[in-house]
Amino acid sequence: MTPIEIPASHTSPTFSPYLEPVASVRPGEPVVIHTLDALGGRVRSEADSPTEAEKDFSPNPVTGPIFVEGAEPGDTLAVRIESIEPASDFAFSCFIPFMGGLSSTAATRTLQDPIPERTWIWDLHEGPEGRYLENKDVRVRVPWEPFMGSIGVAPAVEVVATVTPGPHGGNMDCPDVRPGSTLYLPVSMPGALFAAGDGHARQGQGELCGTALEIACRLTVTFEVEKGRSIAWPRIVSDERLMVVASAKPMEDAARIAYAELVGWLAEDYGFDRWEAYELLSQVGGLYVANMVNPLYSLVASVEKRYLQRT
Amino acid sequence: MTPIEIPASHTSPTFSPYLEPVASVRPGEPVVIHTLDALGGRVRSEADSPTEAEKDFSPNPVTGPIFVEGAEPGDTLAVRIESIEPASDFAFSCFIPFMGGLSSTAATRTLQDPIPERTWIWDLHEGPEGRYLENKDVRVRVPWEPFMGSIGVAPAVEVVATVTPGPHGGNMDCPDVRPGSTLYLPVSMPGALFAAGDGHARQGQGELCGTALEIACRLTVTFEVEKGRSIAWPRIVSDERLMVVASAKPMEDAARIAYAELVGWLAEDYGFDRWEAYELLSQVGGLYVANMVNPLYSLVASVEKRYLQRT
Amino acid sequence: MTPIEIPASHTSPTFSPYLEPVASVRPGEPVVIHTLDALGGRVRSEADSPTEAEKDFSPNPVTGPIFVEGAEPGDTLAVRIESIEPASDFAFSCFIPFMGGLSSTAATRTLQDPIPERTWIWDLHEGPEGRYLENKDVRVRVPWEPFMGSIGVAPAVEVVATVTPGPHGGNMDCPDVRPGSTLYLPVSMPGALFAAGDGHARQGQGELCGTALEIACRLTVTFEVEKGRSIAWPRIVSDERLMVVASAKPMEDAARIAYAELVGWLAEDYGFDRWEAYELLSQVGGLYVANMVNPLYSLVASVEKRYLQRT
Amino acid sequence: MTPIEIPASHTSPTFSPYLEPVASVRPGEPVVIHTLDALGGRVRSEADSPTEAEKDFSPNPVTGPIFVEGAEPGDTLAVRIESIEPASDFAFSCFIPFMGGLSSTAATRTLQDPIPERTWIWDLHEGPEGRYLENKDVRVRVPWEPFMGSIGVAPAVEVVATVTPGPHGGNMDCPDVRPGSTLYLPVSMPGALFAAGDGHARQGQGELCGTALEIACRLTVTFEVEKGRSIAWPRIVSDERLMVVASAKPMEDAARIAYAELVGWLAEDYGFDRWEAYELLSQVGGLYVANMVNPLYSLVASVEKRYLQRT
Repeated sequence: MTPIEIPASHTSPTFSPYLEPVASVRPGEPVVIHTLDALGGRVRSEADSPTEAEKDFSPNPVTGPIFVEGAEPGDTLAVRIESIEPASDFAFSCFIPFMGGLSSTAATRTLQDPIPERTWIWDLHEGPEGRYLENKDVRVRVPWEPFMGSIGVAPAVEVVATVTPGPHGGNMDCPDVRPGSTLYLPVSMPGALFAAGDGHARQGQGELCGTALEIACRLTVTFEVEKGRSIAWPRIVSDERLMVVASAKPMEDAARIAYAELVGWLAEDYGFDRWEAYELLSQVGGLYVANMVNPLYSLVASVEKRYLQRT
Repeated sequence: MTPIEIPASHTSPTFSPYLEPVASVRPGEPVVIHTLDALGGRVRSEADSPTEAEKDFSPNPVTGPIFVEGAEPGDTLAVRIESIEPASDFAFSCFIPFMGGLSSTAATRTLQDPIPERTWIWDLHEGPEGRYLENKDVRVRVPWEPFMGSIGVAPAVEVVATVTPGPHGGNMDCPDVRPGSTLYLPVSMPGALFAAGDGHARQGQGELCGTALEIACRLTVTFEVEKGRSIAWPRIVSDERLMVVASAKPMEDAARIAYAELVGWLAEDYGFDRWEAYELLSQVGGLYVANMVNPLYSLVASVEKRYLQRT
Repeated sequence: MTPIEIPASHTSPTFSPYLEPVASVRPGEPVVIHTLDALGGRVRSEADSPTEAEKDFSPNPVTGPIFVEGAEPGDTLAVRIESIEPASDFAFSCFIPFMGGLSSTAATRTLQDPIPERTWIWDLHEGPEGRYLENKDVRVRVPWEPFMGSIGVAPAVEVVATVTPGPHGGNMDCPDVRPGSTLYLPVSMPGALFAAGDGHARQGQGELCGTALEIACRLTVTFEVEKGRSIAWPRIVSDERLMVVASAKPMEDAARIAYAELVGWLAEDYGFDRWEAYELLSQVGGLYVANMVNPLYSLVASVEKRYLQRT
Repeated sequence: MTPIEIPASHTSPTFSPYLEPVASVRPGEPVVIHTLDALGGRVRSEADSPTEAEKDFSPNPVTGPIFVEGAEPGDTLAVRIESIEPASDFAFSCFIPFMGGLSSTAATRTLQDPIPERTWIWDLHEGPEGRYLENKDVRVRVPWEPFMGSIGVAPAVEVVATVTPGPHGGNMDCPDVRPGSTLYLPVSMPGALFAAGDGHARQGQGELCGTALEIACRLTVTFEVEKGRSIAWPRIVSDERLMVVASAKPMEDAARIAYAELVGWLAEDYGFDRWEAYELLSQVGGLYVANMVNPLYSLVASVEKRYLQRT
């Protein structure tokens, strides 16, 4: 089957219920989605200023929205991440004034001067052990471990910028949205109206400085629709783990939501009552920070599947 | 060399500069520290109420303080965790009214009723693949992966209850304080005045319900003193990673401190300037929640040693 | 001049740049805006459940949007609150499950049961000292001190539910948006696209239980457009004070934004440099909580005009 | 009766259960307490650096502790603020690097440079309308409205620095601790062990830059002991209002505690059930920020006494 291809020219700065779909696809059908990098290709060298790049440009353009046939409000959209391939031979990262985890921001205001703006170019290389990236100043080899930073569906009523995460997915910047994993999203609109962008060649937990290794990508996914199954927040299933991604401020609100949803998931699907699930997750749960830099922070609560085997 | 042994009868409810040491030890000398469980042995069966156990008892008694010879304010105390052995054939966990990550608390107040009090007994077994624990209702086998929940030194002026974490260590509930790792603590008082307790047979990230698999332990450590090296927050070095543990509320404050300290560490010891360190950690750093239930939340920022090899 | 009247049938559940205006008005022209109460008239007695009322109904409908002639992106819209008159002889307040300041919520999750749902009817009376409200159980007379809870303009790109506050105004639940005061809002769309609703007969600071004394109102305003003057967050000027309303989570982020904007305002318009403004506000500023229950919390930083007179 | 006088030479950097009292007083007996300013008199002109002043000096020395006869753990200490008189003809305020509400701090870390250090001298004048203060650059007259910034009793077990507020009182920086008001504190140790310092000639809500108009004072108080009445957090009663001061981070935790305690107070002493109290405070409560700069933030929930008159 020739997969459907969505060109990177079809992008939006929002996840929105009011946008016209750019394509319609069937469950099970592979879809190749070409995505721009977070700044639309405007940063190509150390000399390129991200502040300039953001003038008249909304960061994190997402390709879509894609109408998935059969998806209705109240369903869950399963997005199998088949592969993510680079569409560039370099990635970049930037320090942007009044942005990032160790800077004051528009949300956490101070009267201090910003840290210096700076662009870092990381060249993509092919080595005997696989692809890696390297920057000439940092001089550390970092493996190609790609994922999509902003990926989601349309909310029901609101329109949300692609730099913000939420129940609809969006800019979670979660490294576990990677090839081999399946992302589950709550469907609020007919066709779900899926879109993705903001590919990352790699990223640490937290996306500390506010940018990852930003790169244009070719993302391949297949969709399934879980009819009549309703979830409140994005979930991820990998070979080894179940995960819930919750986005909120302060971080403890995101932590509580993520774990509360995971308690509910274990109670619903794995035969534990909710107190048993609460007790079990207290002893075996995982909880990491995906992003500490976006308008809402994303935390990932997880459990390894091996701990769901009851004796 | 016969190691020094500190009996579990020598405990304190605080980390305090005003306590008399219970022993004096030399750097390099193995020390065996017998610790009580978090509720001092008062919970032994499902019928034992933690609320009753806490009446007239301060939770998390720590054994100590131990005077480490040569440690002076401004030094760093290195605590090599040699081993942690169980001193009981079971561990327990509890739901305590108005405590825990998915409950309102004395800090996060609501007018709701508490969730039901409950005690969970996890029996310790020896299997072909090693020790594990199992509870009769949860019915999941959980491996013996012990660490000390509350471990630290005396602050300079204040006295801090052993249920609270901080720059002095304390109740970080960090699973990486485990055998084979070395914990570094800032020395504020002559002799450092080290103490440890609150052993955990295992714990998930966050210590979700407020209690881990609580167990009395026999902890063996050796101390070294790094003269004239001053650190602001606890650090951990394992075979694979460097870590900083910071404790604060809201969580994002702890996240910022932990990563800022790690930026400083890389700049000081690994030849990066601070902007390179900030950039590198953005792409390869780790950030997980150790506890989301204590008076301050503990977050752990980390970097794998392999990413500190420059080309 | 016969004022323009906008009927309460013209409501929206969002502040949105994509809505068609329901009327177009000129600066200086009085406009009478009829508003529904927060639950659209569905709660009329103690027997009416707010949970039932919210089924298939978006709370906080706002009347509008109104196109203000001459308002362009980058301008500031001045909204003089001329009067607020009751359109009902009672107001109501509710305890809604998992909502309110002393309850766990969808944002601050716990596993506890909710507090009991309840509806409180406050009858509006006319006394010798003016209008007041009284509830049969609380039995305290509370003066009629009305303001609009949700009032704002369209954002530039996003669509925001009327239950959420932000830079565009929205559900600030700020008691200082009252007759005699002027509210200033940043214009993001041609015509500003103003709307208002969620009238409150009175409210304490914080809107503690999540609802004020909710009432349908007849709001009269006049608009002015400040051409080429750009503000980042809503401002209020009363006879006595300058105020900035900022909405964020955690509350300290809102506090920082509100005061930082007020520093900027004093520096821009009152001849202080920003360090003098920072110093002055440290000694004479006011900072109260307007709401602690909405998706973002609103804090109000203020200064009395008398402290802007330099010697 | 000649009041007992406690000289300013008897100060402590902590609220501590382990300190020896400097005096013993009887309930009802006036006590004059001489207090140092927050930096112990080391800042006297613009040329004096607060950073230098803090070297080898703990800020906020409090005079005491004072043993109040008859006070036992579980009682409440009532501290009537009789008067606060200046002991200096000027007050000062400072910008201290990495301190203050619009700066990154040791708790809210960034990689930015600090704002410039600066000392502001405010001269105290006597005018026809009373005392006021004025700084030569700000050039605004600010009235003498004094209160004690750090005032409290000994905690039960912990020792808390005088720069930190908590259930024991401490550095609440609450402008309502002023002449004519009565502060209520929970007694944890025999004699309560009261101390006070950090006098402020005036302060805005939030203590924005981290320092108020700091001044040495002569504080006169009288104590009463409410036997067998136990409170969890400090309360204030003025002629017009009941107030609870709670200190926590994030701010919303302090807001919840303050209002929850006020709900309890109304239920206990004023004949409302707790749901009526919750409803009433939603409509008439006050909630302002006393400090947004200390290790914990202090919020003040209040109700006017006139709203406690039931019909």
